[in-house]
Amino acid sequence: MTVNPVPSAAFASDNAAPAHPAALDALVAANSGNVAPYGEDLLTEQTADAVRNAFESPGAEVLFALTGTAANIIALTGAVRPWELIICSDTAHIIVDEAGGVGRVSGATLATLPSRDGLLDPGQLDALIGGRGDVHRSQPRIVSITQCTERGRVWAPDAIAQFVDHAHRLGLLVHVDGARIGNAAAALNVSPLAAVGDADIVTVGGTKNGMLFGDAILVRRPEHFSGVKFVQKQIGHLPSKHRYVSAQFDALLRDDLWLRLAAHANDMATRLSAGLVALGHRLSCPTDANEVFVDLSDDVHAQLSRRYLLERPVTSAPTVRFVCAWSTTVGEVDAALATLAALPSEQ
Amino acid sequence: MTVNPVPSAAFASDNAAPAHPAALDALVAANSGNVAPYGEDLLTEQTADAVRNAFESPGAEVLFALTGTAANIIALTGAVRPWELIICSDTAHIIVDEAGGVGRVSGATLATLPSRDGLLDPGQLDALIGGRGDVHRSQPRIVSITQCTERGRVWAPDAIAQFVDHAHRLGLLVHVDGARIGNAAAALNVSPLAAVGDADIVTVGGTKNGMLFGDAILVRRPEHFSGVKFVQKQIGHLPSKHRYVSAQFDALLRDDLWLRLAAHANDMATRLSAGLVALGHRLSCPTDANEVFVDLSDDVHAQLSRRYLLERPVTSAPTVRFVCAWSTTVGEVDAALATLAALPSEQ
Amino acid sequence: MTVNPVPSAAFASDNAAPAHPAALDALVAANSGNVAPYGEDLLTEQTADAVRNAFESPGAEVLFALTGTAANIIALTGAVRPWELIICSDTAHIIVDEAGGVGRVSGATLATLPSRDGLLDPGQLDALIGGRGDVHRSQPRIVSITQCTERGRVWAPDAIAQFVDHAHRLGLLVHVDGARIGNAAAALNVSPLAAVGDADIVTVGGTKNGMLFGDAILVRRPEHFSGVKFVQKQIGHLPSKHRYVSAQFDALLRDDLWLRLAAHANDMATRLSAGLVALGHRLSCPTDANEVFVDLSDDVHAQLSRRYLLERPVTSAPTVRFVCAWSTTVGEVDAALATLAALPSEQ
Amino acid sequence: MTVNPVPSAAFASDNAAPAHPAALDALVAANSGNVAPYGEDLLTEQTADAVRNAFESPGAEVLFALTGTAANIIALTGAVRPWELIICSDTAHIIVDEAGGVGRVSGATLATLPSRDGLLDPGQLDALIGGRGDVHRSQPRIVSITQCTERGRVWAPDAIAQFVDHAHRLGLLVHVDGARIGNAAAALNVSPLAAVGDADIVTVGGTKNGMLFGDAILVRRPEHFSGVKFVQKQIGHLPSKHRYVSAQFDALLRDDLWLRLAAHANDMATRLSAGLVALGHRLSCPTDANEVFVDLSDDVHAQLSRRYLLERPVTSAPTVRFVCAWSTTVGEVDAALATLAALPSEQ
Repeated sequence: MTVNPVPSAAFASDNAAPAHPAALDALVAANSGNVAPYGEDLLTEQTADAVRNAFESPGAEVLFALTGTAANIIALTGAVRPWELIICSDTAHIIVDEAGGVGRVSGATLATLPSRDGLLDPGQLDALIGGRGDVHRSQPRIVSITQCTERGRVWAPDAIAQFVDHAHRLGLLVHVDGARIGNAAAALNVSPLAAVGDADIVTVGGTKNGMLFGDAILVRRPEHFSGVKFVQKQIGHLPSKHRYVSAQFDALLRDDLWLRLAAHANDMATRLSAGLVALGHRLSCPTDANEVFVDLSDDVHAQLSRRYLLERPVTSAPTVRFVCAWSTTVGEVDAALATLAALPSEQ
Repeated sequence: MTVNPVPSAAFASDNAAPAHPAALDALVAANSGNVAPYGEDLLTEQTADAVRNAFESPGAEVLFALTGTAANIIALTGAVRPWELIICSDTAHIIVDEAGGVGRVSGATLATLPSRDGLLDPGQLDALIGGRGDVHRSQPRIVSITQCTERGRVWAPDAIAQFVDHAHRLGLLVHVDGARIGNAAAALNVSPLAAVGDADIVTVGGTKNGMLFGDAILVRRPEHFSGVKFVQKQIGHLPSKHRYVSAQFDALLRDDLWLRLAAHANDMATRLSAGLVALGHRLSCPTDANEVFVDLSDDVHAQLSRRYLLERPVTSAPTVRFVCAWSTTVGEVDAALATLAALPSEQ
Repeated sequence: MTVNPVPSAAFASDNAAPAHPAALDALVAANSGNVAPYGEDLLTEQTADAVRNAFESPGAEVLFALTGTAANIIALTGAVRPWELIICSDTAHIIVDEAGGVGRVSGATLATLPSRDGLLDPGQLDALIGGRGDVHRSQPRIVSITQCTERGRVWAPDAIAQFVDHAHRLGLLVHVDGARIGNAAAALNVSPLAAVGDADIVTVGGTKNGMLFGDAILVRRPEHFSGVKFVQKQIGHLPSKHRYVSAQFDALLRDDLWLRLAAHANDMATRLSAGLVALGHRLSCPTDANEVFVDLSDDVHAQLSRRYLLERPVTSAPTVRFVCAWSTTVGEVDAALATLAALPSEQ
Repeated sequence: MTVNPVPSAAFASDNAAPAHPAALDALVAANSGNVAPYGEDLLTEQTADAVRNAFESPGAEVLFALTGTAANIIALTGAVRPWELIICSDTAHIIVDEAGGVGRVSGATLATLPSRDGLLDPGQLDALIGGRGDVHRSQPRIVSITQCTERGRVWAPDAIAQFVDHAHRLGLLVHVDGARIGNAAAALNVSPLAAVGDADIVTVGGTKNGMLFGDAILVRRPEHFSGVKFVQKQIGHLPSKHRYVSAQFDALLRDDLWLRLAAHANDMATRLSAGLVALGHRLSCPTDANEVFVDLSDDVHAQLSRRYLLERPVTSAPTVRFVCAWSTTVGEVDAALATLAALPSEQ
């Protein structure tokens, strides 16, 4: 018996997973005949309706982008002028994981707030509101929060509602980076809308939830986001063969498949999390949805890395991240736990 | 029998066409198991090799992007600082059809040269070289040409080689926007490399040549394009599930399928072009590859528009564009000609 | 007798001239006591009023910048979003002489129109208006014209009024780069307002007209230029000791000193122009204000360059530019003509 | 006797002060004859040498800008590509007081470190170095520190030397925002070079130290700052009548006048600081140079504000800032103390 020399990507990220068959089937079904390009097709129109319906936002504008990073750039650049301020948590994907793309394309300044695993309190916004109208200061315009957070935490419906309301009272817009919004809604067992509060614009993740690629941008208050369509085009995210994004979203949203896939991923994370605790490991933070953060020593991480690609979040030294996907199986979870249990114990 | 009220997109663009079955099959084949994201997978590595081989450029760096607009932005932004000059023809996609994306992301200035249907002469570059080192002037850095041009013209191998050599002698880099580079190589019956001369960076189109989405960036002289990988990330074009771009390119490049598909599209355009001439219409410019530009009156265009989506290029009033794709059939061509023949003749 | 080895800058540019004593006196007078910085002082308020009065624009917003390039950047960046189009002539300072600053800071695209010595016809705008609302195209937003043009030509009041009105009918804003607006008003013998038509925003040159430094931005329709104050700050053009810009403008505007200085510069150019013609030289274009463009061979230019710094505009090979300033004397003009007359005649 | 209704700007900022007579005299002396514009004159060359000499940096490149904000933008934009990271303290002028200009023009991301009144420890840099070469992360490139800090603190020569060396070991460049570098050198009684350590680029403040306007950029390692000259031009900070910036710097640097002026301002701050303490007030932080930060209640601040314009730094609620300038007199200091002593005491 030989050991596979390539570490498994099973828990590396939910974007290491394959696409759900329904997404592929939708591509095959859409692959017929000539269709008006750039989203001027009927399927795209229907799918935009489906997104609006899923979030109970009939007046919303819906755009699609090919990656989550792009969806965030489009949403935030659509909101701000270059002398304005974008506020986010210190773990936010837009500041940590996008190579500065939002700042570069928008020209605006990003200000970070310390967070509890990516969660913020409404009152933290107050200190950033000063300087309105003062030409020497970047003008606060929008706050971006993440649901689930980059530490796998889920905002409770009350918490996000209060946060959004407070931001609105302060004259701030709210963006929700919902790369894993399905996991949040499934974990909370509430509607997608309840999971984003009264946010003004939402990035709706598709890629991590079973699609090959594609995220949507739900512009709930289009009057504040003039120009999103131009930004989308300017960074090359208006796909010519748009039907292939639309078809996948259409398939995933149908009969709430996306929420069922997300719930499964959450369940696998719960199983993994419980198993890690049973093995005596300490969770770095609670497991709310489909990501598990656990404290593992460098030595254990190094040994595990021979079998699994596992990321250490940049700023949290002892933490190792496991992500479960729609496709994660009980067998994979149990095998990972068994691998960990079999490691020689540390001194 | 009723007339379909929706105009056909058959000749609207080659991105109105569906994907070739081989591209879809490749997606299905790639859709198995967990794979390292963001292009860290084996298939992506192999596909990059395939692109290098197709262009006989073993030392090249290869990146992929999700749209042609993005590929152009990445290539050109990778070459310039914001005080430099990008030179292109007056018909270039980057200045006419990308909403100013290249200028916005790079911060650089674009200067356009008058062209013969998108073709340029080497000597036209000379007038733009003045002002090197003068801080009051944008500094000439790269010239972007298109093969096939946006008017469907093909640069002959000698012409492009001389143009590139002249640009190099002037200290300019050369980018080839090869959204339809397969059509050019097929039309010329030369190797892809011969079709791009000794260009420094090439956008290699996949979307218009049978893929669902995806274009490659062939960085033939990486030393002049530091940072392309960061630009790619910053505008959201490093796909997380990268295997789905790679798989399609792999399929299309295999056994030169892409060139055969392009040749078929070219053949259909030749047939259509000949048919138009036989009907007494005047071509706006020669049909070199898969696009046909023909002078049609507003009245004829209006009547045709009830049956076909057909674009009038912005700056060329009497011209109507027909694009043939890998999937265009003889039947479609002949039906279009029959439709045109049946229109009431003009006064 | 020895020849001065340093060529004279007498006709190099109107910014080679010193400042008028009134400007210096105003600095001395302002240099007393502590004053609120960043333009929050009384003198700045009064000077803004003086600018408004000079242009009969009581509802205008007035800002100051330290250079003309900056004033243009602030005015145009204040008007556009990065997916919009700025239209200008092919000789415009903003495209030829500012190293791409407007494009870099605004992110917008600049489109140039062929011109008669910098003058445009209203109808030239029509071709650029297409594509409104089309996300693939940069959206036309503002046209920038120069009065006097970079070839020393002056728009007649009727011509500029018609041009501005036509632009407005097309939904375009109009910027006037008035680096030499005083020379234009003086040459036309009309009010400054008549010299800019009903333009929406005007760069009012001070530096070239007798100040040490400083240009104003007259925002005649502030509702279209939100954010100019932030752009001004963001590129470092809100001077902390603002009184020193204001004091100079105050001195120059008082009793129309600026117009008298400009008229003198124009007179000197008229004298020089007539002298050149009398010597048998061919003017490259009519001398309307304080700049003279004359065709001189490379040989003559080379000989002259030993005595005078004289610029050859980049794109106009045989042309040499002489600029007269408020401080140019009859003696200087006649000496230059004598120098030229004494050159060995060409073969 | 009536009370002046306008609050005095005596301690509002050192840029509320007038210019030193030597600066004005230099303008008058320079105001003669025609001179090559844009810094191509002899005086500018000599002044650049004087700056190099003052900082014992013979190989440095020297540029001038019209404001300190601009000098910072040019220095930092000259160092970074848009995917790189600029590190600074949480009190840095570039992040707090420049409306996001550095981020906008450079496109790069700014990361702030918590500080002791603007002072940093070398070890704080270590945590920001991770992610080098990872395309998902902004790439750390330069750290910007301020001497004196925005809280009036002065880096000791050893401290700044160690900080710079540590940054260099980490592969970071170092920028010193020296808007008040003269005050720091004077306070430390060391050479200007010792006050900036082995920094790679230094903003040398002139405006706050007795000039009408003008700051220099000392590029000590030009090989890392290609393009500063173009950035300077692109944001409109290459003055056409450059002699007027140069003349002032020349005058101030001559016989170390700038250091004597700075020493006087420091002395006045020491007197004010001691007086405040004697009145029973608590300093917010030590008075190292020419700025005094003292805790005053909202009530006291409100009463004082009737007589003095005094700034509360944005993020430090109880603190009020007094700035002394080259022109501050003992009489002004004592009058301010007397005013404060006469306020009705708080409950």
